[in-house]
Amino acid sequence: MSETDASGPEDARLVALPLYKRAEEAMRARIADGRWPPGARLPNEPRLAEEFGVSHGTLRKALAALEAQGLVERRPGRGTRVARTTDEAAVYAFLRLWDTGGERVIPEPLSEALAEDTATPAEVEELALAEPRVWRLTRCRGHAGRAVSLERMVLPVARFPELGAHRPLPNSLYPFYESAFRQSVVAARDDLTAEPADAEAAAALSVAEGAPLLCAARVARNLSGEPVELRRSLYLTAGIAYRVDLSK
Amino acid sequence: MSETDASGPEDARLVALPLYKRAEEAMRARIADGRWPPGARLPNEPRLAEEFGVSHGTLRKALAALEAQGLVERRPGRGTRVARTTDEAAVYAFLRLWDTGGERVIPEPLSEALAEDTATPAEVEELALAEPRVWRLTRCRGHAGRAVSLERMVLPVARFPELGAHRPLPNSLYPFYESAFRQSVVAARDDLTAEPADAEAAAALSVAEGAPLLCAARVARNLSGEPVELRRSLYLTAGIAYRVDLSK
Repeated sequence: MSETDASGPEDARLVALPLYKRAEEAMRARIADGRWPPGARLPNEPRLAEEFGVSHGTLRKALAALEAQGLVERRPGRGTRVARTTDEAAVYAFLRLWDTGGERVIPEPLSEALAEDTATPAEVEELALAEPRVWRLTRCRGHAGRAVSLERMVLPVARFPELGAHRPLPNSLYPFYESAFRQSVVAARDDLTAEPADAEAAAALSVAEGAPLLCAARVARNLSGEPVELRRSLYLTAGIAYRVDLSK
Repeated sequence: MSETDASGPEDARLVALPLYKRAEEAMRARIADGRWPPGARLPNEPRLAEEFGVSHGTLRKALAALEAQGLVERRPGRGTRVARTTDEAAVYAFLRLWDTGGERVIPEPLSEALAEDTATPAEVEELALAEPRVWRLTRCRGHAGRAVSLERMVLPVARFPELGAHRPLPNSLYPFYESAFRQSVVAARDDLTAEPADAEAAAALSVAEGAPLLCAARVARNLSGEPVELRRSLYLTAGIAYRVDLSK
């Protein structure tokens, strides 16, 4: 990095950091803004060290930090690549369903519907949209022979320009967002509540209207912290739970 | 540590670890089994290094690891103490309620009931009880002028021998478990489902029977991984959500 890569307050913040942290942040920024896309091979270590003006040891410390965060993968003799989001990693990180037997539950698609629409003012705000066109993707998914979730996603058309051309969509959406649109989801916040089934959910999940459903209202974000997807998942939690491990 | 502190398979595992890890594990075991209780001051570093047969640098590395895990607190010039669970830490780690305005929700006690009982076979298994006497503690808590949670706890009498003498119980139970009974909760698993309100919950939370409630079924564990408490919390999630932050 020449220090001029960063500007404004970001620049001031970078200067205050230890050297290896500055190199780490500079490389993270390149991954975040797509200059180094998922799967890309990084320049070799001597070249990176030279480019950022740091010693080889400092550069390796920065790469080790990025590796520990799952952002890059280092293979002996094969260099360093920007990590791709695998199906497995996405399921592990972002799907928290377990059955009463202690097995992970990965529901399979039963149906999907996709429509282009204008975002509501609340959605414009939550997705920080400059342009209010969005996709509304609704999926019903099942497990062990019955429908267990109804998921309503809102996706900016600007980030997912030709989404309709990819139907039927794969079950694991986040790896697909990354491979098809270079939209990597690295964090999500779920706000969980209990909600009565509305008419659509009751029909989709074969329960009475008003039956209790677990609702996960999600905002999913990329490495820059920008909102990429809104999702409202309604789960029928008969024999299934959303598991959270807490520790001090 | 003399290496004879550890025995059996534990011993074999310890030998395979780097020296500082062995010192860390030996100190963690002393905290876990109460030889070093919460708030206790550890012997000074030269003495600890001598006792465990490691260099001062290695000992400091082990202490730094314990500090990073929140198990000990090091104050310059005042030595090292076993960390206590503060109200703040317990709330931060184990209470995940937020209101729609983005503020943390900490419900206040409205009522509590305590009774001694015989554990069900399922509870005997979940709590790994040698002796089936348990306390059943039921609390109703409120926020912003209304009842929002009904919590049913099951606590082994053997771990909490004179619980009835401490009533009314403090709002933040985990710091109290630690200070009054030396039972430190360091991890908990919540299985979240949506449940219809039963008669007791409907009355306590002023909703109709069958109204959707968020249920968090919890097993809380100590540093040794032993189950200390079962808890089934029913939340009225009107304007409140159980928040989960996920990341890759």
